[in-house]
Amino acid sequence: MAGSEAFEQAVHTVQFLSADAVQRANSGHPGTPMALAGITVELFTRWLRYQPNDPAWPNRDRFILSCGHASMLLYSVLHLAGYDVSLDDIKAFRQWNSKTPGHPEYGHTPGVETTTGPLGQGVGNAVGIALSSKLSAERVRDAEGPLFDYRVFALASDGDLMEGVAAESASIAGHLGLSNLVVIYDDNRITIDGSTDITFTEDVGKRFESYGWFVQRADGHDPESVRAALTACVAEQGRPSLIIARTHIGIGAPTKQDTPDAHGAPLGEEEIRGAKRAAGWPEDETFRIPSGAREPFSAHTERERAGYDAWQKRRAALTGDALAAYQALIERPAPNAEQLLTELLTGLSKEPDATRSIAAKVQNALAARLPALVGGSADLAGSCKTTLKGAGDVAPGAFSGRNLHFGIREHGMGAVMNGLALSGFIPYGSTFLIFSDYMRPSIRLSALMEQQAIYVFTHDSVLLGEDGPTHQPIEQLWALRLIPNLHVFRPANAAECAAAWAHAAARTQGPTALVLSRQKLPALPEPAGFNPTQILNGAYPVVEAESADYCLIASGSEVGVALEAARLLGERGKVARVVSAPCLELFEQQPEAVQQRVLRGAVRVSLEAGRTPPWRRWVGDTGRTLGLDRFGASAPDQVLAEQLGLTAAHVVRELLG
Amino acid sequence: MAGSEAFEQAVHTVQFLSADAVQRANSGHPGTPMALAGITVELFTRWLRYQPNDPAWPNRDRFILSCGHASMLLYSVLHLAGYDVSLDDIKAFRQWNSKTPGHPEYGHTPGVETTTGPLGQGVGNAVGIALSSKLSAERVRDAEGPLFDYRVFALASDGDLMEGVAAESASIAGHLGLSNLVVIYDDNRITIDGSTDITFTEDVGKRFESYGWFVQRADGHDPESVRAALTACVAEQGRPSLIIARTHIGIGAPTKQDTPDAHGAPLGEEEIRGAKRAAGWPEDETFRIPSGAREPFSAHTERERAGYDAWQKRRAALTGDALAAYQALIERPAPNAEQLLTELLTGLSKEPDATRSIAAKVQNALAARLPALVGGSADLAGSCKTTLKGAGDVAPGAFSGRNLHFGIREHGMGAVMNGLALSGFIPYGSTFLIFSDYMRPSIRLSALMEQQAIYVFTHDSVLLGEDGPTHQPIEQLWALRLIPNLHVFRPANAAECAAAWAHAAARTQGPTALVLSRQKLPALPEPAGFNPTQILNGAYPVVEAESADYCLIASGSEVGVALEAARLLGERGKVARVVSAPCLELFEQQPEAVQQRVLRGAVRVSLEAGRTPPWRRWVGDTGRTLGLDRFGASAPDQVLAEQLGLTAAHVVRELLG
Repeated sequence: MAGSEAFEQAVHTVQFLSADAVQRANSGHPGTPMALAGITVELFTRWLRYQPNDPAWPNRDRFILSCGHASMLLYSVLHLAGYDVSLDDIKAFRQWNSKTPGHPEYGHTPGVETTTGPLGQGVGNAVGIALSSKLSAERVRDAEGPLFDYRVFALASDGDLMEGVAAESASIAGHLGLSNLVVIYDDNRITIDGSTDITFTEDVGKRFESYGWFVQRADGHDPESVRAALTACVAEQGRPSLIIARTHIGIGAPTKQDTPDAHGAPLGEEEIRGAKRAAGWPEDETFRIPSGAREPFSAHTERERAGYDAWQKRRAALTGDALAAYQALIERPAPNAEQLLTELLTGLSKEPDATRSIAAKVQNALAARLPALVGGSADLAGSCKTTLKGAGDVAPGAFSGRNLHFGIREHGMGAVMNGLALSGFIPYGSTFLIFSDYMRPSIRLSALMEQQAIYVFTHDSVLLGEDGPTHQPIEQLWALRLIPNLHVFRPANAAECAAAWAHAAARTQGPTALVLSRQKLPALPEPAGFNPTQILNGAYPVVEAESADYCLIASGSEVGVALEAARLLGERGKVARVVSAPCLELFEQQPEAVQQRVLRGAVRVSLEAGRTPPWRRWVGDTGRTLGLDRFGASAPDQVLAEQLGLTAAHVVRELLG
Repeated sequence: MAGSEAFEQAVHTVQFLSADAVQRANSGHPGTPMALAGITVELFTRWLRYQPNDPAWPNRDRFILSCGHASMLLYSVLHLAGYDVSLDDIKAFRQWNSKTPGHPEYGHTPGVETTTGPLGQGVGNAVGIALSSKLSAERVRDAEGPLFDYRVFALASDGDLMEGVAAESASIAGHLGLSNLVVIYDDNRITIDGSTDITFTEDVGKRFESYGWFVQRADGHDPESVRAALTACVAEQGRPSLIIARTHIGIGAPTKQDTPDAHGAPLGEEEIRGAKRAAGWPEDETFRIPSGAREPFSAHTERERAGYDAWQKRRAALTGDALAAYQALIERPAPNAEQLLTELLTGLSKEPDATRSIAAKVQNALAARLPALVGGSADLAGSCKTTLKGAGDVAPGAFSGRNLHFGIREHGMGAVMNGLALSGFIPYGSTFLIFSDYMRPSIRLSALMEQQAIYVFTHDSVLLGEDGPTHQPIEQLWALRLIPNLHVFRPANAAECAAAWAHAAARTQGPTALVLSRQKLPALPEPAGFNPTQILNGAYPVVEAESADYCLIASGSEVGVALEAARLLGERGKVARVVSAPCLELFEQQPEAVQQRVLRGAVRVSLEAGRTPPWRRWVGDTGRTLGLDRFGASAPDQVLAEQLGLTAAHVVRELLG
């Protein structure tokens, strides 16, 4: 079969596999897979460097489907390309436990590089992965040069580009000059609510040029045009590229092409027949895969095979520092949290300090042990204290450093972090706790994808003081704790800061948020027999007592208040135990008997400078929940503590009247 | 005093009042007030139409300080302009209960038009207010023309323009051609972490041109240059305007000008002295206000007086439809929720349906009674069903309609909604519940500002089905319930949908989120003596029983499951009451005796398709919390209900084994 004929056959196969699968599932998005089939087949048969039998090859090019609703496009192409996605898998599109869920899910399907669906996130992930490639290139080299030079090709919809998270990420990519990134914009002029004219009339190309991108235009249905644009973009050495590809949603569908009806619902049997007929496809057949449809893919991966083999040889020949650098990114064993904690505690001062400051020291000590740790701040490096000392800045043309400048772009930071985590690095990102709200969709995706992203959130309560209620977290702590698979660690002293970072470093199957104080916190006593590894149980006693009247449970800055309250209660003839609870997710994993032993005392009292109702789960019906269920206010922290009831005297008043 | 001399004196007064106040508070941001004093004095003495003794004048021009950390700039100018902000207030900057909190707080200080601080939000609010002006102009007219033509002048920092929420809002403004909006960008080339070169190198002017804005440049310290740019922007008829004003942060400070040190901490006594000396200002005096400093302000408001008086005359002369239209925006009484509920129930079908569909009918019925209700969707109008039928679209040059198209820009939608709420309208905005995460910072600000914004979140659980975990809310319900002053209403049937909208319409002191199902829900029984106004208690029995073994408490789609579970329990010889709990915030306000009566039964069991731990507050130590503490999956809804334990049979298994 001639190349162009085989190509066209592959494109039609993808189009109709997608339409058929959506029809069979009676749910899904047929129009975009049909529109983007040509571009995607072009990418997988001419541009992307990959080997389907080694989907985890570290130097593969990445394909990111940011418009994740077009998932059938990806599944169809992965099938034809030889990934472990069978025709039966495709027939089980959107069914329980299938490899082909409604939106692509990372870790679920070979060849799926990130979980997409929430719009804009994929663009940010693509930026992060492209950045990973640049960072990796500087870290792992042999005599021939860098071992990493992978590229990222992403497909993005109107919706992706309307989202702020994509705008923030694109600005970062333009600033850094990520020339290994090509985003193809599916300019179909249709959104769910109708023509893009109703709300999306900006000049997208000009916007991306303003970010410093190289912008090309193409007819998305003309292979020559697409190829020319890709050729120019891949040749571009200094800038990320955007290809504005004019396409027709649902192309070929007799009545639904170029309409929103082609977007989010099955086309209907008749419409699919019509499209097949127009394409010269047997209209009675479904899930048809002509024998030649796989040819362009296998021919391409065959051509790519030599490069892959050569790379594997280079990889096998790595020794010394280069091998160590490679292993640090790609093959590192997870550290043991208890052992790491012990190491991090060595020489760590127990002097009272802000936990943001203590955590900074711990982080720097950890960084020496964990070369994969890279990160930065949303323009609050000085306040969050998350700069890795002496590690150098990442900047345009300079990727050997470890400190990133995300700018005042929290959401972009979160999406880029996920990209970094997906490609060998352990990213951290810092901002004030209040601004965790700006990046929640990305945090959720770290948790869903089980990625080791580390969030450092400082200025963790109203006690940040004068900046007032716009900056004072109230509901953020519990709102984070609600995200499944996110661990939230709010340390109270040096040992807990070390435990927080040790846990975050050891936890490879999900993200961890460190929640740190702006203000200085007192040192904590260590009860007899205390072992710092107890902290990793999530909650543990810092003041012990037999037959206690109260068990005061606190986290972070409130542990010191609880200690003082226990002392005052003692003066009033009451016995109080004090429990520090830095990580409730870890404590939740303890056997109930352990939980009960840690929390023993006649009346349990929670104390935390944030929302109180969810604490009921830990204090029970007879317990008390002290904290803050209103917005904060602008005033010095000690005044706020007095006025808002966050003092030991207030705790005693609440308990004893 | 010559005009230019008085102007300069006013500028220096603002600069040094700001620096002195920050110094006295030992906390705050002096550099930006110093840099922007000239521009702001220019605005308040030549451009803004306002009367300080009537800060609520509905047709006043609005000044928005999007970079809210520069709050002392605003307080200084408000003081000089004659607003009710005294020198003592300024001396109490950032102190408990003062009129001058760390960031400007709406409702707290006369002349503060919106609460700012979280970056980017003020730009979005400004877009919303500019849109309000255009909408109002089409609604309230007399023989002379529209009664509203107010303009919005906003100051924005690098941080504001890096944030995605500002990007989304700016694109909306450009699309709609909001020519009454002028944003002045404080191009000081400094952020907290250093020079903007480290991460913000995009071409901002080109970016805003790509959105369809009119872009001008000015020297921010040259009044003539600023004036020329403002003249051009105010004359521009078709587009919103951006003035890129080159400024020097901390201008005049001998060692800190143009450095990040001028940004977020007091300059220090010596530095302030140096700045005063350089300006020919008595360096030993603090909080100095020369007699001439108020002159340019009073002269300006005196000039503006005639226009104000003329407007008041026109306002007083309004009659008939025009007066009614005015009152609907500016002087409307809050509806009574119970009465409104009764009206909305009239003729409302009780047939089983998806609550999104029922709520759509209620919303359309309500819209006829509430002309201030305007809104739209983040490109999901068809799925969320929030279009107001026959009300017309808002589009470029066409502002008489009520349906807005926000595009796939949830965060921009939230910020624009807040602007609409701040200027006469009751905005609603819709998207899927999962994407509430994209707009949380704006929702929080509605709650903090006590604004009547209404969020319509559909597709409210895993039972949306095949779209899978990226689209399935798990933690979102409780995460919303954690926001202080936000009411979350998750109705289960027609009567509850009517109650949800009635409550949202009547609640003028804060936002309400309606949480609605994609799928059809069964009708509910009405126990003897049921009165629909009981729904407004937040929770009420739908199945009554004496000496019940169980009290099943559910919301939304799970109420039907609870009913079926109660029936199955009955077959097993157990008595179950069923309580529908559509709004826990309202139920929390009930006297405890009422709560106990509603929830009576030996064992309380909560059932909701979302996170379970916070339900402990309502079920107590002996209760059970059934729901979902894991991410969802892609499959048809009935399969998911089976697999994830959201069926009546599962409830019975959990309770009886």
